[in-house]
Amino acid sequence: MAGSSFGSIFQVTTWGESHGKGVGAVIDGCPAGLSLCEEDIQRFLDRRKPGQSRFSTPRKESDQAKILSGVFEGKTTGTPISILVRNENQKSGDYSEIASYYRPGHADYTFDAKYGFRDYRGGGRSSGRETIGRVAAGAVASKILGEMGIRFLTYTRSIGPVSISGQYFDEAEISRNPLYMPDADAAAKAQEYLKQCMSEKDSSGGVIECVVTGMPAGIGETVFDKLDAVLAKAIFSIGAVKGFEIGSGFASAAMKGSENNDAFLFRDGRIAKETNHAGGILGGMSDGSPIIFRAAIKPTPSIARTQHTVKKDGTPTEISIQGRHDPVIVPRAVVVVESMAALAILDLLMTGMTSRMENLKKIYLP
Amino acid sequence: MAGSSFGSIFQVTTWGESHGKGVGAVIDGCPAGLSLCEEDIQRFLDRRKPGQSRFSTPRKESDQAKILSGVFEGKTTGTPISILVRNENQKSGDYSEIASYYRPGHADYTFDAKYGFRDYRGGGRSSGRETIGRVAAGAVASKILGEMGIRFLTYTRSIGPVSISGQYFDEAEISRNPLYMPDADAAAKAQEYLKQCMSEKDSSGGVIECVVTGMPAGIGETVFDKLDAVLAKAIFSIGAVKGFEIGSGFASAAMKGSENNDAFLFRDGRIAKETNHAGGILGGMSDGSPIIFRAAIKPTPSIARTQHTVKKDGTPTEISIQGRHDPVIVPRAVVVVESMAALAILDLLMTGMTSRMENLKKIYLP
Amino acid sequence: MAGSSFGSIFQVTTWGESHGKGVGAVIDGCPAGLSLCEEDIQRFLDRRKPGQSRFSTPRKESDQAKILSGVFEGKTTGTPISILVRNENQKSGDYSEIASYYRPGHADYTFDAKYGFRDYRGGGRSSGRETIGRVAAGAVASKILGEMGIRFLTYTRSIGPVSISGQYFDEAEISRNPLYMPDADAAAKAQEYLKQCMSEKDSSGGVIECVVTGMPAGIGETVFDKLDAVLAKAIFSIGAVKGFEIGSGFASAAMKGSENNDAFLFRDGRIAKETNHAGGILGGMSDGSPIIFRAAIKPTPSIARTQHTVKKDGTPTEISIQGRHDPVIVPRAVVVVESMAALAILDLLMTGMTSRMENLKKIYLP
Amino acid sequence: MAGSSFGSIFQVTTWGESHGKGVGAVIDGCPAGLSLCEEDIQRFLDRRKPGQSRFSTPRKESDQAKILSGVFEGKTTGTPISILVRNENQKSGDYSEIASYYRPGHADYTFDAKYGFRDYRGGGRSSGRETIGRVAAGAVASKILGEMGIRFLTYTRSIGPVSISGQYFDEAEISRNPLYMPDADAAAKAQEYLKQCMSEKDSSGGVIECVVTGMPAGIGETVFDKLDAVLAKAIFSIGAVKGFEIGSGFASAAMKGSENNDAFLFRDGRIAKETNHAGGILGGMSDGSPIIFRAAIKPTPSIARTQHTVKKDGTPTEISIQGRHDPVIVPRAVVVVESMAALAILDLLMTGMTSRMENLKKIYLP
Repeated sequence: MAGSSFGSIFQVTTWGESHGKGVGAVIDGCPAGLSLCEEDIQRFLDRRKPGQSRFSTPRKESDQAKILSGVFEGKTTGTPISILVRNENQKSGDYSEIASYYRPGHADYTFDAKYGFRDYRGGGRSSGRETIGRVAAGAVASKILGEMGIRFLTYTRSIGPVSISGQYFDEAEISRNPLYMPDADAAAKAQEYLKQCMSEKDSSGGVIECVVTGMPAGIGETVFDKLDAVLAKAIFSIGAVKGFEIGSGFASAAMKGSENNDAFLFRDGRIAKETNHAGGILGGMSDGSPIIFRAAIKPTPSIARTQHTVKKDGTPTEISIQGRHDPVIVPRAVVVVESMAALAILDLLMTGMTSRMENLKKIYLP
Repeated sequence: MAGSSFGSIFQVTTWGESHGKGVGAVIDGCPAGLSLCEEDIQRFLDRRKPGQSRFSTPRKESDQAKILSGVFEGKTTGTPISILVRNENQKSGDYSEIASYYRPGHADYTFDAKYGFRDYRGGGRSSGRETIGRVAAGAVASKILGEMGIRFLTYTRSIGPVSISGQYFDEAEISRNPLYMPDADAAAKAQEYLKQCMSEKDSSGGVIECVVTGMPAGIGETVFDKLDAVLAKAIFSIGAVKGFEIGSGFASAAMKGSENNDAFLFRDGRIAKETNHAGGILGGMSDGSPIIFRAAIKPTPSIARTQHTVKKDGTPTEISIQGRHDPVIVPRAVVVVESMAALAILDLLMTGMTSRMENLKKIYLP
Repeated sequence: MAGSSFGSIFQVTTWGESHGKGVGAVIDGCPAGLSLCEEDIQRFLDRRKPGQSRFSTPRKESDQAKILSGVFEGKTTGTPISILVRNENQKSGDYSEIASYYRPGHADYTFDAKYGFRDYRGGGRSSGRETIGRVAAGAVASKILGEMGIRFLTYTRSIGPVSISGQYFDEAEISRNPLYMPDADAAAKAQEYLKQCMSEKDSSGGVIECVVTGMPAGIGETVFDKLDAVLAKAIFSIGAVKGFEIGSGFASAAMKGSENNDAFLFRDGRIAKETNHAGGILGGMSDGSPIIFRAAIKPTPSIARTQHTVKKDGTPTEISIQGRHDPVIVPRAVVVVESMAALAILDLLMTGMTSRMENLKKIYLP
Repeated sequence: MAGSSFGSIFQVTTWGESHGKGVGAVIDGCPAGLSLCEEDIQRFLDRRKPGQSRFSTPRKESDQAKILSGVFEGKTTGTPISILVRNENQKSGDYSEIASYYRPGHADYTFDAKYGFRDYRGGGRSSGRETIGRVAAGAVASKILGEMGIRFLTYTRSIGPVSISGQYFDEAEISRNPLYMPDADAAAKAQEYLKQCMSEKDSSGGVIECVVTGMPAGIGETVFDKLDAVLAKAIFSIGAVKGFEIGSGFASAAMKGSENNDAFLFRDGRIAKETNHAGGILGGMSDGSPIIFRAAIKPTPSIARTQHTVKKDGTPTEISIQGRHDPVIVPRAVVVVESMAALAILDLLMTGMTSRMENLKKIYLP
């Protein structure tokens, strides 16, 4: 209800502020018998770690995940998995001034409006560090989905005006450039663009794309908890997301039915589709084609340029946000998007297990 | 969990299939003391009623709402409000053939994949008639929000390639044309476009925009149940939605921080913003500016053109969907979008009541 | 949240007041493929129907259940099952006076305290008629559990001071006497006792016992949603329940560990227990032995005797409740207790399906 | 769903096993602006700490609570409060043998049945240490309720056959004897009884009683989430509880309506009741009288006496549980019962805030 939990069966609760003692997540509902170790989680966390290129904050955050419960002799036990990442390298002094005014594009004002005051150090609960809990949980969800044959490919589709070209799509390239773009040429241009933004004390947004393969058909509920609706919520719950679309998305609004409909056909022993404008979801349920979605990420609001704003009492002021901020958060958000997608899909996969009487019998009758 | 309920405090459960005995909704958690009558609900339902123009199905559905419980002497009692709309004018015979094959763009195949079989008459549970329950509940939510000073303006922004122009925006025009467009010129062009689609046995998509004014600041939860995340889920749970964006949305991904940030200022005795790229939401909470969002609606999948598809067993077949289908569902979906937005916002408004100790004291201490 | 729903997967929402248009339930999350017809539900409803003996209200309530959705060609489709029972034979005039004062033992005062006013006709939402929705849903849950080999035996254990004797326990006797007691001798004595209560214009309470056999071991969650905790809530949510115990229950508090512990043994190819003080539940999970629980039902608060009470404004008054009230509700509550137990157990059975990785693979991998 | 969370608004998730790295709780939904420090929590934890008398295990567990998030400058911020208690003094070696067999009265067998295997060290997740998270959260809930004028008095009512006498009830005595009994004479007799149990290598059960004063009327939902139903679940979710009753409880089943009904009267400017057989709850809502309930606690299943049981494969074996076990857990469970009651009541208090339109206006309109 206060909304720090996600999922109804595989349920993740995150906690922690930027400058508190740490951040973490508790996963309730993880099935027993999954092999799991801290390294599984660390691999995911390392993908969002800052300081890996000139295009992310030079802050050092080692972000070591500790599993405190729920794993015994290398396997999940079915009981809650508590994961803790201690905060380090937080200098509270850095943030004393921002207590007094409201930064444009940040949640300072809305936190005050909701709660009456806020933990202003480093963004408090609305800091990007909150996503550590999500990514830790996403690592566990991904591991389970991997055992079910479901794979994620997530990457940067555009940075500012620079977009990848379908023509040069190269999966292997994603991990070769610091922007996680699957197109070396676009990645080079995007880096130029970012350098220019930085020289102008400005920042950039971008678009992240995610492709999920190996989905069984029929996952998702049919009314409010449609697979696309749950994905939309999952992705939109990430701080900087301002848009979400599935398959042809906004473009489909300008299409005709005859262009947008995907014809069914029979291929490799199963029902498939000729095209995939639907992005792998029909009537809120997976249709067996790859799920494809995109998330629009707004430019980092913390910029060194002078901005107009007001103090708590309404007095106008001018600010210039110094400090170690990402000129673009898109590359670091790639793993956050993937994690949230994994949480959404796994939860609906588990929900779907009770959809047929024959499934109850498969589990409980000899 | 099976996902026919929406909301955590103001909780709506819809039920019913296109060709069953009826459709309806149960609202649990409506505060006591709201004046409510069937006419309040009927007004909303009439906005989605078919047969009002040549651009919607000529089916006659009177869709009379009956309140079965939860209202006593003209006021809500705080107990569940059960609303029933009987199905009429359903000719099951019309649909016998579609039992055997999978219509492109529809949920036929995914229903079979999930449940093993489906009620194939008129789309069954995935029929647009399911939204009657949502709209009935949305009418109640809107009435409550109206008493809190919160208003909705929802309209068609585009039909196929024809979009309204900001220059000619005219609120009064919305109810004057059958497409609910706030721009007479665009509405005329869109009607021409639709006539052409119909002559080609084809259909069109479009974009719906919604503006919410009068929001107090600080509504929405800070992590997973952000106001934009809950809105995204609410809107994406409507059948034909393929994209959702808030404020500058996808455009913000191509902007710089200095362009996208909205400067705070002090105006009319309260903190406000110079621009509204954020669409009224910062850090997942309302910021007091109008909330602005858009939903992309795909073209109606039922078209009279010949389409390729397969039968249940995979055999290829050709179909041409006859019958009384909307060439565009956008105008009828306007009130569905508004209803889902109202449900999302009201639920978070109620959730937010417990955010401060002083609120508990306001309610319970003398 | 407003608490008209029960269950997290097999989720039941009841609605309706005593003197509104009807009462009903919506079941969301019923697996697809269960054979179901109105007669399945009617059989359960008939067990709670009044007017079947001199010990229940002579009101005539035909209580015919209609299934409005979720069943197609005799099978559940996996979508919500809406069940409606129209109210009949309600004479609102009977109840006009009770609007002004608070009946002892009833919810009149607390409804006013919570909502500011109440639908005072026939108890409104707190009427026993609300249980019709529970019993209708319980009928569906029982049918599913029956297919899983799980059976319920529920009966009256005592009426006032008259208790059944373990020595003369006779299952077949339950349906032979109007009190649903499995002991003809006790039933005769209890009827004598009730006649005396009625002649004194008074009423009686009693104890209901329920035995559930065929439970697989391991059903129930390990912390807050223990099988006994969920059962306790389910049973205590029935209006007149004042006590609940499992197995040896309150008696175990006076026992020693050596008396109360049940030794494990191996019998008929499986692990079993020598005794069953635990009532079939260990650590919140079923242990494979029969589940045995008891519910204490308070005496009907509506009595014809003169009682002291106050009016809404605090003025003292004397009342004598006339009308057609049950001198004891225990026999009619037997099926309500069984229904709530079925709902609780089925929901946890379904919840438990995701407890192991191997279960996910059984459902989704070829 | 996996049931490690309790509450819908004030939502507590506990995690941790007896012999893992620690145990803890995350509280989501705590209102902002409550003064809170670790000492507030420690005071509650110290009440359940072992080693305080010869009647509890001599294990030393310092159980120091650390608040990791959600508190800033001494006040709750409205964001999740994560509380961590590190495990110490765990000797895994002690428990190696119990991996192979099933202890009577414990959850060993049911854990294996549910999950396929278990963390057998010290009871794993079903250890009494799991209640640390509950008590830590209960301390926070109690503090909030205290500010609302709601107080708890919880004590041991009986140990084995030795019960307190209403005649000698002395509140001040509760903290003077190690059994938390409000009757010095009964406490002395109970200690004699426990010594005898210990000399017989046996254990004892008992009954805990809780009285809650200062409740506003009208708290609790009217159907499934009745105040007594939620309390029943809360209390029954504590490991060793086998019975729960409110007010006259099981005794009311043998009473007549005229004896059990509580007459309303007007006293001290408000509506009150002459007697309190109802235990402060009518129709599932608080009636303004003290809430009184009792919980039956079974005798500690770990006893040094020889017991029959089976190994995992069904082979019979004899065991004698050595180690540092409580001969009675009732005194240490007193604060656990109080904590769960506080969690249940606070959650319903917060839920109830949205029951009236006028409350929404009180919070949101100027």
